[in-house]
Amino acid sequence: MRYRVKVEVSLKPGHSDPEGETTARLLRELGYSVENVSVSKVYTLLLNAASHDEAANKTEEMCRRLLANPTKDNYTICVEEAP
Amino acid sequence: MRYRVKVEVSLKPGHSDPEGETTARLLRELGYSVENVSVSKVYTLLLNAASHDEAANKTEEMCRRLLANPTKDNYTICVEEAP
Repeated sequence: MRYRVKVEVSLKPGHSDPEGETTARLLRELGYSVENVSVSKVYTLLLNAASHDEAANKTEEMCRRLLANPTKDNYTICVEEAP
Repeated sequence: MRYRVKVEVSLKPGHSDPEGETTARLLRELGYSVENVSVSKVYTLLLNAASHDEAANKTEEMCRRLLANPTKDNYTICVEEAP
């Protein structure tokens, strides 16, 4: 089976997010009433796996091994069947 | 009212995504059966606006003015009330 997996990798609270801070400042300079901006990254994977659970487990492993930095990143995983 | 707005900015189809390609290659080298990886960026904004519609319209404007490049980017906007 083919699965589409979305992994959102975001900074843990307390870590500085210079890109978000700069974006917030620029938006305020353009006149928008923005309190805060944070930036995260989404990996959308097309993955072959035997089941939904296997796709989720493999992706969890990929996050630990490559996609996220455990020191500074949180991540969420969302698995759906690919058409 | 305060709104939490998520803006996902992704590449339009046909634009090359070197970060996604490299990630896919690395995951394959680690033994995962990955067909494709694409990378997108999520801006999470905390925004003051009079209504849900105003928050959505302002964010649409921010995308056109700053957050997305109309030549190469698609974007989706999701607005919810912030606690």
